Amino acid sequence: MPQRHVFTEPLPLQSGARLAPYELAFETYGTLNADRSNAVLICHALNASHHVAGVHVLDDGSLDVGWWDNMVGPGKPVDTDRFFVIGVNNPGSCFGSTGPSTIDAATGKPYGASFPVVTVEDWVDAQARLADTLGIARFAAVMGGSLGGMQALAWSTRYPERVAHCVAIASTAKLSAQNIAFNDVARQAIMTDPEFHGGNYYAHDTVPRNGLRVARMIGHITYLSDDDMAEKFGRALRADDLAFGYEAEFEIESYLRYQGAKFSEYFDANSYLLITKALDYFDPASAHDGSLTAALARATAGFLIVSFTTDWRFAPERSREIVKALLDNRHSVTYAEIDAPHGHDAFLLDDARYHRLVAAYFDRIHAAIGVAR
Amino acid sequence: MPQRHVFTEPLPLQSGARLAPYELAFETYGTLNADRSNAVLICHALNASHHVAGVHVLDDGSLDVGWWDNMVGPGKPVDTDRFFVIGVNNPGSCFGSTGPSTIDAATGKPYGASFPVVTVEDWVDAQARLADTLGIARFAAVMGGSLGGMQALAWSTRYPERVAHCVAIASTAKLSAQNIAFNDVARQAIMTDPEFHGGNYYAHDTVPRNGLRVARMIGHITYLSDDDMAEKFGRALRADDLAFGYEAEFEIESYLRYQGAKFSEYFDANSYLLITKALDYFDPASAHDGSLTAALARATAGFLIVSFTTDWRFAPERSREIVKALLDNRHSVTYAEIDAPHGHDAFLLDDARYHRLVAAYFDRIHAAIGVAR
Repeated sequence: MPQRHVFTEPLPLQSGARLAPYELAFETYGTLNADRSNAVLICHALNASHHVAGVHVLDDGSLDVGWWDNMVGPGKPVDTDRFFVIGVNNPGSCFGSTGPSTIDAATGKPYGASFPVVTVEDWVDAQARLADTLGIARFAAVMGGSLGGMQALAWSTRYPERVAHCVAIASTAKLSAQNIAFNDVARQAIMTDPEFHGGNYYAHDTVPRNGLRVARMIGHITYLSDDDMAEKFGRALRADDLAFGYEAEFEIESYLRYQGAKFSEYFDANSYLLITKALDYFDPASAHDGSLTAALARATAGFLIVSFTTDWRFAPERSREIVKALLDNRHSVTYAEIDAPHGHDAFLLDDARYHRLVAAYFDRIHAAIGVAR
Repeated sequence: MPQRHVFTEPLPLQSGARLAPYELAFETYGTLNADRSNAVLICHALNASHHVAGVHVLDDGSLDVGWWDNMVGPGKPVDTDRFFVIGVNNPGSCFGSTGPSTIDAATGKPYGASFPVVTVEDWVDAQARLADTLGIARFAAVMGGSLGGMQALAWSTRYPERVAHCVAIASTAKLSAQNIAFNDVARQAIMTDPEFHGGNYYAHDTVPRNGLRVARMIGHITYLSDDDMAEKFGRALRADDLAFGYEAEFEIESYLRYQGAKFSEYFDANSYLLITKALDYFDPASAHDGSLTAALARATAGFLIVSFTTDWRFAPERSREIVKALLDNRHSVTYAEIDAPHGHDAFLLDDARYHRLVAAYFDRIHAAIGVAR
């Protein structure tokens, strides 16, 4: 079940702003062992939350399955019979932690556009404070996919003494110009929606639904592989004949419009803006004259880096850059490039080879904990 | 200089609708020879026009260079000292031919949303009628890039006796699900802009500028290669430091926003919708149980097919499918895969190897004309 912790000590942000007070929503699975050495932190990507695993029954009776439920749980690759797993919603997001839709105690109104821009490093700092409150000095592993993998990487250098293993899946050490371009078009769609009201749409009792829907559709295309889309949808039509109009007539149109509309019902547009900015900004090498090798020098963790062949958002080449920088530093690294058809989304899917690999890596982690104990 | 021709005979469209009367804007370069055997038709892609080559001085004194001026002109690969070249604006577009912004004589108002959906085949039929009025029974070549290449392919099977050579560059015999997805997101951006007014924005004295801008930004990303974007823009910032805000701060953001805004000032949103639909619908194999080989069986032309290695919109694989279908039919085909960094846009750029190849092909065409004479 979700828990919450309120932090009154201000969180200094990379932008120079401070966030205070703030609340973090989190969820834990499994049991912390006596020497507190079996904790695993799972970092979420753009549209996920602290609800990593298990099933919640919502107020309307529907079931809410954790976003990485195939990966985390009893007997699963990250086995909650062995590990104490923590999922935490990042500040700026919209699933319970303080974010743009939260009431700012200073004004009595939602933060809206005044919520400060947060970075991957800010999130990691917030997560470290949560670890403090839970009495976890060192994680057996910090793990994430995509944007979550960036957080795992940032942990490895920002708090090297607190991370035994760093697991970054389908991730990158920085966005490409093309990645930034897609994010910016998505932001433009949101910000030019007249219902956006400069980010203060809450006061107008509306949301920039159309903009958010288009933003999600753009993102969604980049999560899927061209081949997988071809296989699943191809040029299949919803009806027998061409309609010569603008209703959804190809199956792929119908699918993306539906998914976009659904997303726009539950996700906060300001959070979308903030999180895409955090993605754009992440670039640990930039403080080291562009050298990722120098940026990762401080890390002491063991690394598991995984990429997927058909991921064109964060292609295997991006993971290989991370691996190279780790090897330059003679860090311990395991790298796997999984031949999977599902594009970037593969990291969330149930692929046997991928899951066996992660399970084996966590077996090793668990064995080492056993020895230490 | 642009010319116009009014057609009073209705044009029957694939949708079952008829267009009448309609006007085509076109431009010619070079001189038609005595036996009318040196005519070349250039078909345009999404946002181009009949103004293929040469420079016009606009009313405001600025210069308007033809969109394929590096390819077509005296001494250029398509040499207007040898060939009589015709550029024609397709109906549904917005550069002089009848389209959604044209006044519908029946109502005295712009067509707007009532303009019928047109297809690649409809355009080819309109172009054939224009050829009739110009006294051209058979083209030495029909040529185009991208969507223009689709028109050239359609010519080769719809009017096989009227096409000696078909030149299709950076094209495809059908859009993939991913291609359709990008087009549909672009259309959704336009159609959900409140200024769209169901396509009748002319009556409201406005245009869906924001939607069209986002649509163009999406398209633009797909025209460039990831590598080329990385090289030209990378993660370069416009200022020294991160701004932690939403103004354009990466160079790539600034570039795409500027290009999107410029496009939204001159292009008609309804034309954008229509032309992306024509792209989506093109699929000559669909009438032959999905067999492109069967679809191209009727062709008698010689073919030049060109693709570019970094084009991920219409990748070389798409051109190879066309080549395979042509070879299955034992048609004459020359195929080149040009190693160029510029993605889909490469077909418009001045690449020496590419231009030499096209020049050599047109030398052959010209030599054959000489013999025939």
